[in-house]
Amino acid sequence: MAYVAEEPELRIGIDIGGSKIAAGLVNRRGRVVSKKRISVEKQKAYAKVRDDIALLIDELATENGIEKARIERIGIASAGQIDNETGNILFSPNLGWRDVPLRADLEKICCVKTSIENDVNAAIYGEWRFSLLKCARNVLGVYIGTGVGGGIIIDGKVYRGFSNVGGEIGHITLNPYGYPCNCGNTGCFEAYCGGSYIAQRAQRRLKSGYRGKLWGILGGNSDILHAGHIEEGYLLGDELCETLWREVIEYMGAALAGLVNLLNPEIIVLGGGVIYGTQRLIDEVKPIVEKRAMAPSIKGLRIIRAKLEENAAIVGAAFIEA
Amino acid sequence: MAYVAEEPELRIGIDIGGSKIAAGLVNRRGRVVSKKRISVEKQKAYAKVRDDIALLIDELATENGIEKARIERIGIASAGQIDNETGNILFSPNLGWRDVPLRADLEKICCVKTSIENDVNAAIYGEWRFSLLKCARNVLGVYIGTGVGGGIIIDGKVYRGFSNVGGEIGHITLNPYGYPCNCGNTGCFEAYCGGSYIAQRAQRRLKSGYRGKLWGILGGNSDILHAGHIEEGYLLGDELCETLWREVIEYMGAALAGLVNLLNPEIIVLGGGVIYGTQRLIDEVKPIVEKRAMAPSIKGLRIIRAKLEENAAIVGAAFIEA
Repeated sequence: MAYVAEEPELRIGIDIGGSKIAAGLVNRRGRVVSKKRISVEKQKAYAKVRDDIALLIDELATENGIEKARIERIGIASAGQIDNETGNILFSPNLGWRDVPLRADLEKICCVKTSIENDVNAAIYGEWRFSLLKCARNVLGVYIGTGVGGGIIIDGKVYRGFSNVGGEIGHITLNPYGYPCNCGNTGCFEAYCGGSYIAQRAQRRLKSGYRGKLWGILGGNSDILHAGHIEEGYLLGDELCETLWREVIEYMGAALAGLVNLLNPEIIVLGGGVIYGTQRLIDEVKPIVEKRAMAPSIKGLRIIRAKLEENAAIVGAAFIEA
Repeated sequence: MAYVAEEPELRIGIDIGGSKIAAGLVNRRGRVVSKKRISVEKQKAYAKVRDDIALLIDELATENGIEKARIERIGIASAGQIDNETGNILFSPNLGWRDVPLRADLEKICCVKTSIENDVNAAIYGEWRFSLLKCARNVLGVYIGTGVGGGIIIDGKVYRGFSNVGGEIGHITLNPYGYPCNCGNTGCFEAYCGGSYIAQRAQRRLKSGYRGKLWGILGGNSDILHAGHIEEGYLLGDELCETLWREVIEYMGAALAGLVNLLNPEIIVLGGGVIYGTQRLIDEVKPIVEKRAMAPSIKGLRIIRAKLEENAAIVGAAFIEA
């Protein structure tokens, strides 16, 4: 603890997820040197959660023997849409917040310069800055978890677009007449490759009586199903898992190939729960991307697994420039 | 002619197409004040075409009473891949050229500073600079002609990507198991909405015996068919044309919606032969984009028709910064 307190230029990154909030003390090399978590209920009142976050920051500093005045910056990463001008969260789908002034409130309560950023943008920025070590100018981050999120780094900056909502990689169309997506459209990348969508398709089949090796893997409990089980079933030759797996890798490969043609990135970073929970996904998707993308677009491209994993958004939020 | 000769800061833009080469004298306001064209055969030897272009530049200057030393710059727009470092055309699909040093050669022959750019990038740059008057920071240009090309303007600069081949909007995937595309992939935007692909689908049906109003519109000659005929047939209630038209607008709407979610542009400029040859295409696509795209991504978006039409690439090439 004494060691942490002596580090210069400490920052705090906050990652506001759907069910928990994590706060990390980040050193100037982008390492999380201390971390605390609290649970948060869905649709929780903003004022209560805001005060809980302020308390979490206080505790993280105190427990590490650091005066808050020494904290260089607090960086918040939140799902949903952020207004980067005002620092308000315009809409947080998990918490049900609309237009809440979290940046301004925390800055006032904590007396520390505070910034706020979309969680996926923060994650890919953290990855670019501290795991890729800024070696690449054009990076595409694709996070496949419950849904599919993404972020685009161009010349070391997060690409935001006209009204600051750019980078919604999960909502490119992969089939205009395809699966319904939670965004209201049909056939989005997310509807094909998001973990909750894949699980729902498997569960629907299990509920309508499908048995086979997958049923054994799950011990008869379809509620626990996640992408790792589908991979396990696929490797054991379960028919349903094979179908689902082939669909996911083919659509994911086609999505990435299209993005490669469009954006010609140097590196694609793949992260998120589905990526971390499977072993072979990236290896099986790569040859599909290579086959589908145009030769000059794919030349020199690297497709790699995210390294910072669950700390990426904390680290990125602590360092990203608005 | 005397008037043209008195204009300050004149530039020359060259647009190298598949069957003709156009050269325009462009004034500092981006207007083409004089223009000349030559035909070019497919797979024509590079040295011959290069010398023809040099001659075309000479004639354009001489006929307008302008000394070549007064030309500020020659800007070349060419289909295919350009190496922006060397100024070489790496591959020109129409002319069959590979790695030809056109920029360096013309600079040497003409003694005028010369630049080179991909034709679609040049066109959207010209559009951004002289028709949108630089009012927008994030612009997406989608050119639907024989194929589908595109260009992305971010903060006033053409987005090129890691190895300079970014912006291939025609080759985002719209259906991994869809129509074959000339790029070797299946289900590209181009394979659904490119003019030659649409015409091929119609011609195949006509050749296998389909008659109906379309047959009358074409006077029994399916070889002359283009996108305008499909629109005409659709408006007259021809069944084949209705099917083709609905497919094109639905896939085009879905493609643009995905691009809107991903890139959050302020303006989408639609150009190219299919756009210019139809009356209602843009109007019918707009509501599909609005229905499919996410509300925050589409807020404030404008979808407009390109204004510079066939002069866009000439003007853009004359002004674009490498």
